[in-house]
Amino acid sequence: MIIVGELINASRKPVAEALHIGDSFPVKRLAMEQAAAGAAYVDVNAGIFPDREPEFLAWLVTRVQSVVGIPCCIDSPSAKAVEAALAVHRGTPLINSISLERRRWDALVPLIAGSRVKVVALCMSDDGVPVTAEERSAVAERLVNRLVGQGVKEDDIFIDPLVQPLSTDPRSGRECLRAIRRLSDEFPTLSTICGLSNISYGLPNRRLINRSFAAQGVAAGLTAAILDPLDDDLLDEIAAAEALIGCDAHCAAYLRRHRSGGRPDLGRRRTTDEA
Amino acid sequence: MIIVGELINASRKPVAEALHIGDSFPVKRLAMEQAAAGAAYVDVNAGIFPDREPEFLAWLVTRVQSVVGIPCCIDSPSAKAVEAALAVHRGTPLINSISLERRRWDALVPLIAGSRVKVVALCMSDDGVPVTAEERSAVAERLVNRLVGQGVKEDDIFIDPLVQPLSTDPRSGRECLRAIRRLSDEFPTLSTICGLSNISYGLPNRRLINRSFAAQGVAAGLTAAILDPLDDDLLDEIAAAEALIGCDAHCAAYLRRHRSGGRPDLGRRRTTDEA
Repeated sequence: MIIVGELINASRKPVAEALHIGDSFPVKRLAMEQAAAGAAYVDVNAGIFPDREPEFLAWLVTRVQSVVGIPCCIDSPSAKAVEAALAVHRGTPLINSISLERRRWDALVPLIAGSRVKVVALCMSDDGVPVTAEERSAVAERLVNRLVGQGVKEDDIFIDPLVQPLSTDPRSGRECLRAIRRLSDEFPTLSTICGLSNISYGLPNRRLINRSFAAQGVAAGLTAAILDPLDDDLLDEIAAAEALIGCDAHCAAYLRRHRSGGRPDLGRRRTTDEA
Repeated sequence: MIIVGELINASRKPVAEALHIGDSFPVKRLAMEQAAAGAAYVDVNAGIFPDREPEFLAWLVTRVQSVVGIPCCIDSPSAKAVEAALAVHRGTPLINSISLERRRWDALVPLIAGSRVKVVALCMSDDGVPVTAEERSAVAERLVNRLVGQGVKEDDIFIDPLVQPLSTDPRSGRECLRAIRRLSDEFPTLSTICGLSNISYGLPNRRLINRSFAAQGVAAGLTAAILDPLDDDLLDEIAAAEALIGCDAHCAAYLRRHRSGGRPDLGRRRTTDEA
């Protein structure tokens, strides 16, 4: 599982406060903790400050990369904010996200053309949010083809089927899992990714729902996830789920994690702390 | 999820001792606790006493049914033991298990012919233990056809793909999940069942592996399981998994379980304690 650590998001109070007063310490600590817990990318999101988003997002990128050697996941629908973050980012970033929505596509494509970036390709178009796995797959196919046409390598595309809350539609979980399975079958060389915790929005004991969905997602072929890497129970469950589907030879990563009392390593990631 | 409570098994020390000294109290308590926790069947197994198995199995059945109103899952490969248990069982029992193995088939079929019983149909034949989902499916098809030919109703058949430990073969989990998915597709009116905890044999933190496998099994179409109903974490995870795949309308059973602080009800079962 390629883990994108979700904790540096300005919708979370400690991050918003750090941005307000320009205190880099909480941001650096969250970056280091997530990297140490096995994150391959540190998501940065300053979306709740639309007026200052470009400035704040670039600030977050520089602070994160001053302490960890892993890339950021630049999380914004705003081309201006993405541009500002890209200008200071070192290494190959993951842009979260592009979609078939015309405005989003037109604004973001110039930024990714010509330089290597990885992208989260969201299964969404101007026709709205797809419901069934088949609708998601149709959007994904068009989106992947267009991205490849722009020179993005297939290996650099993370398809996101778009997780909708279970509380608003009882089909959300099932159709998302079917979509992951279908996308994994149709695009075996691409990663599939999702923002796991969206599924549990509005329900009690969200961490339980997230864990169960993670296990089901792994079995359906999910290879990456945006999640809280400091949730040890969640990472334990992912390690078990990966062993169960046979993608952890001899349960080696599961056993290492068990012996270390949780926390890394989950086998396929290396953070600066461990390197 | 149709839950078969696995705790009254003579391989467990308190049960073996109870059998030895004829103390019915521990057996009755385990029966009541499992029924209260949502079990639809109470498994009884006295297999470690081959010389006295018929007598002990019948004793267990009568003691269990003296305190709970749910049927037993009569768990023995011995026709003599099954016969003795059936002679005292009230209601429709679940026999665990029949298979295509010639000796087992020939010995058990006379016992089930003519009276209504439910059966666990194990995907095994004299050709040995199947490995792939396709092999399991082929055995299941022959077995189901032969059972129906003997007058067993399709609704009364629980197909068990046969869970093998992950520690002995890294394909065990994946192939079992594929088998569950395939059997669910091919026999949509039948239940699929498995002995969940077999998967984690020989690995540390077995309960974690069992939970993760349960979530994956539910997503693959598993409708019944032989498990420890007193493992609240496991039942919590199953409730979440069922909500996630949309077979718990409006997450009603999940929310009821959450509000009650665990334990029943899981919605589709009623025990004597709750009736």
